[in-house]
Amino acid sequence: MTVSAEADFLEALYRAWSSRMAADPQMSIGMLRSMFDEWHQPTKEPEAVTYRSDVVAGVEGIWALPLGADTSRVILYTHGGGFATGSAASHRKLAAHLAKALGTTAFVLDYRRAPEHPFPAQIEDATAVYRALLDRGFAPGSIITAGDSAGGNLAVATVLKLRDDGSPLPGAVIAISPWLDMELAGESLTTNAAADGLVSRQILEGMSAMFLGETGKPDDPLANPLYADYTGFPRLYISAGSAETLLDDATRLADRASAAGAEVTLSVVDRMQHVFPCLAGRAPEADAEIARIGSWYRR
Amino acid sequence: MTVSAEADFLEALYRAWSSRMAADPQMSIGMLRSMFDEWHQPTKEPEAVTYRSDVVAGVEGIWALPLGADTSRVILYTHGGGFATGSAASHRKLAAHLAKALGTTAFVLDYRRAPEHPFPAQIEDATAVYRALLDRGFAPGSIITAGDSAGGNLAVATVLKLRDDGSPLPGAVIAISPWLDMELAGESLTTNAAADGLVSRQILEGMSAMFLGETGKPDDPLANPLYADYTGFPRLYISAGSAETLLDDATRLADRASAAGAEVTLSVVDRMQHVFPCLAGRAPEADAEIARIGSWYRR
Repeated sequence: MTVSAEADFLEALYRAWSSRMAADPQMSIGMLRSMFDEWHQPTKEPEAVTYRSDVVAGVEGIWALPLGADTSRVILYTHGGGFATGSAASHRKLAAHLAKALGTTAFVLDYRRAPEHPFPAQIEDATAVYRALLDRGFAPGSIITAGDSAGGNLAVATVLKLRDDGSPLPGAVIAISPWLDMELAGESLTTNAAADGLVSRQILEGMSAMFLGETGKPDDPLANPLYADYTGFPRLYISAGSAETLLDDATRLADRASAAGAEVTLSVVDRMQHVFPCLAGRAPEADAEIARIGSWYRR
Repeated sequence: MTVSAEADFLEALYRAWSSRMAADPQMSIGMLRSMFDEWHQPTKEPEAVTYRSDVVAGVEGIWALPLGADTSRVILYTHGGGFATGSAASHRKLAAHLAKALGTTAFVLDYRRAPEHPFPAQIEDATAVYRALLDRGFAPGSIITAGDSAGGNLAVATVLKLRDDGSPLPGAVIAISPWLDMELAGESLTTNAAADGLVSRQILEGMSAMFLGETGKPDDPLANPLYADYTGFPRLYISAGSAETLLDDATRLADRASAAGAEVTLSVVDRMQHVFPCLAGRAPEADAEIARIGSWYRR
């Protein structure tokens, strides 16, 4: 199987970022955030979606409102960027493509970011938004938590925290290229090091240090959901590319959740990069994956 | 008159950029572009607008399509950023707010940028898109050229070029905080140096050098529309903030176009920063200015 020419856009972007980080190893967090906000570039504007800036439970974010969507359903979307970068703006279009495929709305959170706000600030924000959505009348089963990379971790960890708190759970969880392992023990971190244009052990070490801060533990199940118990977990879709250093995070999550009896769908697409669904509207591999997620949700 | 607390957001963003540029005087063009793309941050999502990624006459861009808009009318929007930075993405929301106020659609161009593509590549792209819009059936008088900062220059220069070529002209032109003077001779460049959070002589010198390249002349009327003849020019709205170093570009354009008999409206808002309408949805000063532009267009 070959990679489409359009999908090369993402690897080129990642390699450009990697070059810039290599040229400036002391890049400030402000510049890192500016650079990672280019994550929106691979994604084409989805048609027939309107947006609304909002604040829910004190958390800023962007509603994506596809025309004709079931407005009683909502994706609570947590963006990627190592818990320290990325934004609702950088992931607005990806979340909107996903919402269109599911036939729902989405709220993309600008959760508090590390290092200013280490773990568990991100989960606090996501659970606060979830509860506010319940207060606004959304049924728990009509909410989907979804996210990519570090946001894929949050999409899972938010549900684990809700379960620990005895709250009613969302109806489904979508983790796109999730980064889960704060101990960096996956074999793909080594075997895919050359193939992955962006995610290196060095980057993950820096971002996990910012995320965990002084008190977070790399084996805390809410920081590292590979240690969590998935008994009673909602149905779970996990997406990854085979070229990713984080591939083993996806497969280990699938194994662990399945072993606990959860309904798990794992989709690994050949030769795709980290968070390749952000190529939506540009590359057929991304559109096909998002369509699969939509079919999975609707059945 | 005081500045709203919400309007302070823009000055704070500009001063943060200025600090980062001062700390890294050799900042690469790639990092400058990442940083200036944060220009979208002051702008809230306008409600009830959909978008579409497109390529018109070989130029990529984003359509902003307000629900209920007159789809026979379109703003050809050229973004700011010194001809070298900024993008359709960074100005999508501003253009969409403007389109809503006018009751039209907008196409926001990702024109070729300096220094890779110096003057007159930007005007070539804009005129090519204009002609393609005519081919798609838009009447000349139903097209509005609009832009901010360097893009305000392009909104004017595109019309000058069309007139030179004997083409039918757009119905209206909107120049928001236009940067016109490649000789940097405005008095406000000195008198407002402390008040303006972003636009310094140093930045303008760097950007004009990239824009003019090896062959552009700082007194070419298409590069510096303060030298142009405005006989027969469409009706023109010029917006600026009184705190701007580029205030005199706005006032000199108004004087010159009026002297040639053009119908000119100049709006200078007290204590506002460069391109303050990008605070749309956030600060009342921006919303009021965009509403004024809408009323001006619709009458």
